[in-house]
Amino acid sequence: MTQTSPVGRPLRPRGKLLQEDARRHHRSLLLQQLFREGPASRADLARTSGLTRVTVSDLVGELVADGLVEELGAPAESRVGKPPTLVGLAADSTHVIGIDLSATDRMTGAVINLAGEVQARHELARDGAVGADAVALVHRLAADLIAMTRRPVLGIGVGSPGVVDAGGTVIDAPNLAWTDAPLAATLAEAFGLPVFVANDANTAVLGEHTFGATGDGGLMVLRVGTGVGAGLVLEGSLLHGHLGAAGEIGHVVVDPDGEVCACSRTGCLETILAVPHLRRRLSGEVDPTAVLTDAGERLGVVLAPVVGTLNLHELVLSGPTELLDGPLLDAADRVIRERTMPVSSAGLTVRTSRLGEDVVLVGAAVLVLAGQLGVS
Amino acid sequence: MTQTSPVGRPLRPRGKLLQEDARRHHRSLLLQQLFREGPASRADLARTSGLTRVTVSDLVGELVADGLVEELGAPAESRVGKPPTLVGLAADSTHVIGIDLSATDRMTGAVINLAGEVQARHELARDGAVGADAVALVHRLAADLIAMTRRPVLGIGVGSPGVVDAGGTVIDAPNLAWTDAPLAATLAEAFGLPVFVANDANTAVLGEHTFGATGDGGLMVLRVGTGVGAGLVLEGSLLHGHLGAAGEIGHVVVDPDGEVCACSRTGCLETILAVPHLRRRLSGEVDPTAVLTDAGERLGVVLAPVVGTLNLHELVLSGPTELLDGPLLDAADRVIRERTMPVSSAGLTVRTSRLGEDVVLVGAAVLVLAGQLGVS
Repeated sequence: MTQTSPVGRPLRPRGKLLQEDARRHHRSLLLQQLFREGPASRADLARTSGLTRVTVSDLVGELVADGLVEELGAPAESRVGKPPTLVGLAADSTHVIGIDLSATDRMTGAVINLAGEVQARHELARDGAVGADAVALVHRLAADLIAMTRRPVLGIGVGSPGVVDAGGTVIDAPNLAWTDAPLAATLAEAFGLPVFVANDANTAVLGEHTFGATGDGGLMVLRVGTGVGAGLVLEGSLLHGHLGAAGEIGHVVVDPDGEVCACSRTGCLETILAVPHLRRRLSGEVDPTAVLTDAGERLGVVLAPVVGTLNLHELVLSGPTELLDGPLLDAADRVIRERTMPVSSAGLTVRTSRLGEDVVLVGAAVLVLAGQLGVS
Repeated sequence: MTQTSPVGRPLRPRGKLLQEDARRHHRSLLLQQLFREGPASRADLARTSGLTRVTVSDLVGELVADGLVEELGAPAESRVGKPPTLVGLAADSTHVIGIDLSATDRMTGAVINLAGEVQARHELARDGAVGADAVALVHRLAADLIAMTRRPVLGIGVGSPGVVDAGGTVIDAPNLAWTDAPLAATLAEAFGLPVFVANDANTAVLGEHTFGATGDGGLMVLRVGTGVGAGLVLEGSLLHGHLGAAGEIGHVVVDPDGEVCACSRTGCLETILAVPHLRRRLSGEVDPTAVLTDAGERLGVVLAPVVGTLNLHELVLSGPTELLDGPLLDAADRVIRERTMPVSSAGLTVRTSRLGEDVVLVGAAVLVLAGQLGVS
């Protein structure tokens, strides 16, 4: 799913690596099947994976020994002959640490199980920390979270603002004053765990795709916060874009006669939709519905060409639901349909995130699940 | 590359099929290498494919016997020791029939070699043929083209207007009055050849991606003709969209106060950019540059959100160059850059197609190359 590379995986000799890669791939096939479809018998797993019964039994034995898979006994409805024993993913056998750095005033984290369920939460106030202080704060948060679970930790996932490269280095995150910050490498060294870092909007769309989406059609998650950015999963894969800048829709100009933006151009989508701008406009107006409807209509205008071009399945708004869910979403939905062909909008759902404020945390866990177990 | 299924491939027993699939996959690996990188020695092929020397020699022997690959002797610069013999794709050993149904007044076709070079052309006037008459005309064109080459024909590729499913059935093409027309199946039956049919904009983007693009970044080809539609290759794969309707940007509303469109809505991109509208406006104006600049600016407005969202590498306009190449393209390019972040537009090239009017024909050949040889 994601092309983010793991950091902290020990190097192995090349000959061994190919054999291990095949085994790892086969393990992933079985885990993916149990992850997506739920409990199954060994015979089911052999049938769907195309592996032999012997290989499946061998790998399942290994996964049970590792604690990732558990024996569930026979299904209740079995009546004729010796019922097959089902095995299933042991969701709470292993935990993942998810960290969300997208808020401006705090860093949030969670202990998450293999089913994407938050088991415990923790957050630290940022108090304006930037640069090395902000890195130290992420380390403290990770240490606190690891101490909160007694299960083995599969890895650490981080959703960071800004541009993040495939090796987990934050190339540029102005908010945190990070330039070429090797966050994955330093966390991996400090904790001896695999670490995955990705842009927060990309992390969000992976979370929504894995644990919130209804299908496998194109999914766009638009994150509305201090800024506005998007993550996209198209044809089952995260869209990176030519120079890794896919989803940069916040500074697309919507209204050339509008407000001057922080980026120095005029009328960017952010000047209309970002939370501080929305709240300021709501505080000065007597008719909040009119403000939200206007913002939603302008959002619809900018998204209609995107929906028409991509034939999206789901367009998800992620941010404060008291702002997004209601007149704003309704207006955006209406304008998108008015401005595209029925063939483009017939299969489209416009909604808010099913994961709410947890979407980046859960997505950060998906980075680890995909990278370490090959499931997503 | 494309998910279009071949039609006309004989069915084989399942056990045999798996073995043959592995062999076919390995053949494709070698052909893909020769197709993309040019001539290579057997040792080079073994190194890059990861296959053993013995397997490579065996497969190359088979490909030479099939005529797809030829021995090229030793490279001139070899001086020390026994020079390795190079093998290369035998571009003219086998031909492909490409057919373009996107024009309203004629059907065009070509005999194309494995390097994507047009060897011969042929066209038939449509004279308003629709329905079964139009199908009969495609069959006549295919028969004429097959008679024009003495080489073995690898298959027939067709770029058709309208919505085309993965099995090569044209679901809906109003221009030709086709509804659920099983074009691939009837052509395959008539000629005993593998046939691939896809939407013309998707076919065009495959042609440009394989034989006209400069890189592997996101590519969008905007076809401007009687209508306007787009095809996209993102992260190396053709974008289909949720219901197979990706690229339907022609009826995205650009100007709600504009002209009424054939689709009954107002101010669709087609009312601004389609060739008949452009020609009509040019014939009534004294300043053609102003007309073309205005159309280009409006195109830039509708494409800016798409470019920002996708971080495209190349945006290609395909259609009459006397209309597109000049003030129109320049204005679109300028407005897209004015309306997106530098990070979105820095790596972007906006240009006309390198394949000119042949883009659908060559793309139709790519459908066959991808489907039959696994190269693209």
